[in-house]
Amino acid sequence: MIIPIALESHEDYSYEITIDSLPDLNFDNKVAIVTNPTIANYHLQTLLSKITAIDLQVVMVPDGEEYKTLQTVEDILNKLFEYKFDRKSLLIAFGGGVIGDMTGFTASLYQRGIDFIQIPTTLLAQVDASVGGKTGVNNQFGKNLIGAFYQPKAVYIDPYFLDTLPLREFAAGVAEMIKVAVTFDKGYFEFLQNADLYEKETLKNAIAKSVTIKADVVSQDEKEMGIRAALNYGHTFGHVVENETGYTKYLHGEAVAIGMVMANRLAVELGFLTPDDALQIEAMLKKFNLPTDYHIADVDNFYDHFFLDKKSAKNKIKFILPKGIGDCIISSEIHEDIVKKVLKTFGVK
Amino acid sequence: MIIPIALESHEDYSYEITIDSLPDLNFDNKVAIVTNPTIANYHLQTLLSKITAIDLQVVMVPDGEEYKTLQTVEDILNKLFEYKFDRKSLLIAFGGGVIGDMTGFTASLYQRGIDFIQIPTTLLAQVDASVGGKTGVNNQFGKNLIGAFYQPKAVYIDPYFLDTLPLREFAAGVAEMIKVAVTFDKGYFEFLQNADLYEKETLKNAIAKSVTIKADVVSQDEKEMGIRAALNYGHTFGHVVENETGYTKYLHGEAVAIGMVMANRLAVELGFLTPDDALQIEAMLKKFNLPTDYHIADVDNFYDHFFLDKKSAKNKIKFILPKGIGDCIISSEIHEDIVKKVLKTFGVK
Repeated sequence: MIIPIALESHEDYSYEITIDSLPDLNFDNKVAIVTNPTIANYHLQTLLSKITAIDLQVVMVPDGEEYKTLQTVEDILNKLFEYKFDRKSLLIAFGGGVIGDMTGFTASLYQRGIDFIQIPTTLLAQVDASVGGKTGVNNQFGKNLIGAFYQPKAVYIDPYFLDTLPLREFAAGVAEMIKVAVTFDKGYFEFLQNADLYEKETLKNAIAKSVTIKADVVSQDEKEMGIRAALNYGHTFGHVVENETGYTKYLHGEAVAIGMVMANRLAVELGFLTPDDALQIEAMLKKFNLPTDYHIADVDNFYDHFFLDKKSAKNKIKFILPKGIGDCIISSEIHEDIVKKVLKTFGVK
Repeated sequence: MIIPIALESHEDYSYEITIDSLPDLNFDNKVAIVTNPTIANYHLQTLLSKITAIDLQVVMVPDGEEYKTLQTVEDILNKLFEYKFDRKSLLIAFGGGVIGDMTGFTASLYQRGIDFIQIPTTLLAQVDASVGGKTGVNNQFGKNLIGAFYQPKAVYIDPYFLDTLPLREFAAGVAEMIKVAVTFDKGYFEFLQNADLYEKETLKNAIAKSVTIKADVVSQDEKEMGIRAALNYGHTFGHVVENETGYTKYLHGEAVAIGMVMANRLAVELGFLTPDDALQIEAMLKKFNLPTDYHIADVDNFYDHFFLDKKSAKNKIKFILPKGIGDCIISSEIHEDIVKKVLKTFGVK
């Protein structure tokens, strides 16, 4: 199936997401596939058998979030200059979110912008990074702090690449699907409650729905001035969890799962969400073995970490709180005392 | 006077260029002025006396094209993180083209984009970099090879900052004014032939006209798919001259002046330009003591250098050739032999 993506403000930034077995791709320009040894080991031969180009290069970057840096991007850029890539050349991001974010960012920078295509190989990248145009790298101050909004020319989502994905990473992708369901679409939430996501056709439909919801949000608000912030449900808390645990203990989706439970408890405290709805969401996370609790060693310290988040403009923390299942509230006016009261209930069993 | 700038493709990317004495500027957010010691020495006190902000920082970068690198941009970014700048914070580029290009690029990258304002202090930056949204840095492979298209929120052109500009740099700015006159506007060319640019009101009018012409071109073609390439008149040749002389012998505008004479001679050879028109253009360049000849040591080598230019997609060299005065032709189909024949006539006296 094909999902058209468009941005209301920029008529020329539109592309299609194809959810199906990867088609043959023939290019009449220079192409570089950016990938890492893990993905290459499993799937590079398959990809190479599907692509023709004037000049086809493979740029290998080390596997891992710790290499998502400006230095790695500069290394990729230098390779492209050595290959004498021009403004008509094309990059293909072949991997998970780290590869996608860095490849898109590199494409945005090379000679002030060349085209790129995404072929995401993790569920998280398929449902999340494939839409929205957020590209970038981490630095010593935090995650995704340097980057660009830059849209791909096309995205190919082939669920068969997920066959080699570890179960834990699969679940981390499901967390983002649950996220958009809770904040935007009760029907999708109910679908996910009953779906067998290990069945390929069901999975394709689930991915398509998740991508469509996100695309709808992003098309209205590319630069995250308003409604797009709702996609950060679970992330305000999740980022602190990731940061406190050195980005090693939890996968991003797992930290977001914990973050959603935290946001839910705050929403219950404020009366936006019923305890029963909160339990339903938690049950769904547990169904996929996602973590739902976390030991907060120091609540004040945890709270201070919010301010490192780039969404916290002018020292206000922006919370995304579910309003029932299928809707949400964005608020920068939640009192510190209430947030800390809720934080104190975590990891105390 | 105020010149509105708009891009046809992006309704939200519009801003104004104010050509006048710098007004008082009051900001209710964090602001960093990016400048260098040379400009700061002359004009920083004046600027600081005009600006108020919640938090006002000055980020000093070394003076010179050789510091227009990704490393300097990273240094600026790190300062902004240390100052805890957020997504509502603002950068002010206060200097020439190097400062403008790096500050705009930094603004595009910081948390995926914050606002920036340009206060250009060289004539070249006032007439050229103030319009078009080209930002970026150099690397070991060439000039402006890494960057972004990113528009400022406002540009303030105060001709009084030019009082401390060396005459040679003033002339380099005039070269870009002559460039747009030759390629787009015969009336403006005739105005420049008779104008006393050292008189402030005349200079303001000349800057306004140059900016208006460039803005008109850029608004039609932000990403340089078509007509915008005409702004590279003199640059195809000029970049090679700069590169061969290690970016030290000639100012950018001076190399462009030589490049225009080269393009003109090619245009005369091909019958697009009369010898008399070519002489008129050369006379105008000489009036401002701009260089019009250059010794080409090795014509084949000079020719090969064209391919380092990022405008040369798919191994075709794009030449911008004046068609009389006030119009031009863009062609990627000029035969190598003719180009080399013309190149051989340079620096042989």
